[in-house]
Amino acid sequence: MWMEQKLCQLNRVEQIQDPQGFTRLGYSEAEYKSHQQFIRTAEELGLHTYQDKVGNQWAIWEVHPDAKAVALGSHLDTVYNGGGYDGVAGVLCALAAIKVLQDKQFRPQKNIAVVCFIAEESARFGISTIGSKAISGELAIEELEDVSDMEGITVKQAVEQMGINWEDLTKATLPVPKLEQFLEVHIEQGRKLQDSQAKIGIVTGIARPVRLQVTAYGVANHTGTTPMHQRNDALVALAPLIPYVSRETAAMNKQEDPHLVATVSTVTVKPNSMTIIPSEVQFGIDIRSVNDAAKQQLVTNIKQYCLELAEEHHVTVDVKTLVNNQSVQLDDTIQSKLTHVSKQLGFKTESMVSGAGHDVMNMATRWPAGLIFIPCRDGISHQPNEYTETSNLVIGTKVLAAYLQTEAIQ
Amino acid sequence: MWMEQKLCQLNRVEQIQDPQGFTRLGYSEAEYKSHQQFIRTAEELGLHTYQDKVGNQWAIWEVHPDAKAVALGSHLDTVYNGGGYDGVAGVLCALAAIKVLQDKQFRPQKNIAVVCFIAEESARFGISTIGSKAISGELAIEELEDVSDMEGITVKQAVEQMGINWEDLTKATLPVPKLEQFLEVHIEQGRKLQDSQAKIGIVTGIARPVRLQVTAYGVANHTGTTPMHQRNDALVALAPLIPYVSRETAAMNKQEDPHLVATVSTVTVKPNSMTIIPSEVQFGIDIRSVNDAAKQQLVTNIKQYCLELAEEHHVTVDVKTLVNNQSVQLDDTIQSKLTHVSKQLGFKTESMVSGAGHDVMNMATRWPAGLIFIPCRDGISHQPNEYTETSNLVIGTKVLAAYLQTEAIQ
Repeated sequence: MWMEQKLCQLNRVEQIQDPQGFTRLGYSEAEYKSHQQFIRTAEELGLHTYQDKVGNQWAIWEVHPDAKAVALGSHLDTVYNGGGYDGVAGVLCALAAIKVLQDKQFRPQKNIAVVCFIAEESARFGISTIGSKAISGELAIEELEDVSDMEGITVKQAVEQMGINWEDLTKATLPVPKLEQFLEVHIEQGRKLQDSQAKIGIVTGIARPVRLQVTAYGVANHTGTTPMHQRNDALVALAPLIPYVSRETAAMNKQEDPHLVATVSTVTVKPNSMTIIPSEVQFGIDIRSVNDAAKQQLVTNIKQYCLELAEEHHVTVDVKTLVNNQSVQLDDTIQSKLTHVSKQLGFKTESMVSGAGHDVMNMATRWPAGLIFIPCRDGISHQPNEYTETSNLVIGTKVLAAYLQTEAIQ
Repeated sequence: MWMEQKLCQLNRVEQIQDPQGFTRLGYSEAEYKSHQQFIRTAEELGLHTYQDKVGNQWAIWEVHPDAKAVALGSHLDTVYNGGGYDGVAGVLCALAAIKVLQDKQFRPQKNIAVVCFIAEESARFGISTIGSKAISGELAIEELEDVSDMEGITVKQAVEQMGINWEDLTKATLPVPKLEQFLEVHIEQGRKLQDSQAKIGIVTGIARPVRLQVTAYGVANHTGTTPMHQRNDALVALAPLIPYVSRETAAMNKQEDPHLVATVSTVTVKPNSMTIIPSEVQFGIDIRSVNDAAKQQLVTNIKQYCLELAEEHHVTVDVKTLVNNQSVQLDDTIQSKLTHVSKQLGFKTESMVSGAGHDVMNMATRWPAGLIFIPCRDGISHQPNEYTETSNLVIGTKVLAAYLQTEAIQ
């Protein structure tokens, strides 16, 4: 079947399930090779292809260079040992929708573009959605400077190894200048669709993160010789923040419904030696909601609680904001239309927010934009066992095709 | 002054305070060179020297090869960036006591031996007191096999680089076969002497550790897409154990007086990534008391609390005992005699337990043994700013000399 064959080709494997998963980092040879597979399929469909200056790979079903345009797409890069659907599903459904329309002899009156945004995942450089940021005019070159991956390769070196000109990175432009709207299909990476047995998630907004770095400074001392009452243990001081964040976030969700999630996801203890009392402890906290006010309220509460912990335990606690992103609302009209065509096709829809970031959040800053989710098994993503049935990819494709039939005609 | 000069020579520096401290790891060239300095000073005092098969360096004021003997000593190795007194103070006071007795024309009737035990610190290989374990018959060669340092050098390689025969390591024997007792002087590494303004700590016992490794297993998931009520966050589950250990230990000390200390000193979180809910969390817990029953009671309480946390948070919690050492009681008669001579010299004594391990704990398994503490500034040890005044070294020396005058005569 075409869909399964292309899924494997874009992932460059014979079979889609692999215990090691896939590692196609942004600006890597592996990502480049998947882009080449994309080009091959696009050419099979008679599309013409184009690489913009940041490295996004485009395929265009062109009516006329000056025609209005609709763009679809997602990305082909992955995290370390990720799955074969995060990103790929969106590119594949877009190509498949064009194939469906071509098979139906549909004659679009607008250009239809499919894009593979480069370097969507933050896995390699700690910076996400580089390609869609660039095309939306959201990329600050300064934030890429002095950034390197685990092997010490800088973004600049990686970019140049792919034959892309570093100086031109922010000068990426659309191959379809009269773009009217952008649409992304993505696996949900959550369990709401599975739990509600809906087939299509209509995304209303994208919860972007606030990230805090909380550091407590105590005094290192010998674990054997320092009596309990003479300690300034940074870990004992800061540990209550972990259940606090979990409890407080759950409570805020009960009072209203801000779809707030917060996680103490990283911990560093110094010196982390069996015989020495912890002198420095650092937590990384990831806070997300489409409701920016709820995020800020939680930050305020965390800061207040840290003050209390510092006073109670005679340590210094420092709270630093690493990331403070405004959340993104998606286009209402597009949501209505997507709901409409989905229902017409007989697919149960569910309105929802996205807890994860996607390329569409950048596109939405400049163009009307929409995001639909298809189910993924048990909500598991960024893991080798990430999976969705081919039938779900077909459903995504059908919705896109039906949507294009109404949008690409006038 | 002889004392300060020898302190610098044993540390092989011009001045004892160094912002970087000293790094003389066990079985290293640096430790070897300090042993050579020890030999030089011993020879100046007319002592004859001997290296046993594990690498301990001895100096003997010999009356007759078959005479009864008293041994004194400590070690010359240090942790990474340690101070100039931990270990060195005990070796120095022992040599100085011999000098004092020689200057007084004292004629011992027993052999008096001074020993520098090799590799006392666990800093390099994670295994402590290798030299004193070997001479006490407590060294199991199996526990040294397959152990290597941060640079991948195995104990065997390090030992052989020092010209020591690996096969003979456990065959170390005393150069003074009729040993009657062993005495160690050490800096306190705590603040009790400073706080009570006593000059000599008479140690009653050595609190040896129980060490636990507690691991919680949850489920990794995306921090942005997983609602609070659908999480199995291993960190949220296990975090309450940190304040519990601190609180419970303090409470047990209030009820009775087991001199119990316990520390969650190491934390490992997996995957420790900002966007992924912690799936595995591991704590290292160090528990010490001279009261073995108190240690076991705390272990029991911790295990019970872990069961409660596992049930409450729907995670698996595994508690593994890494180390379970019986604490060591030191010889009562020696304690009385040391208290007596100290008071006769006009030094205020304080009876106390040692929260840290020392070579004497191994010697005490075979011979009557004693340990005296001298003050160290603010209790700081294992740090470059570890410090004690020369006057405290002189006090330790005077007590040793006075003790030998009564013990080495009949």
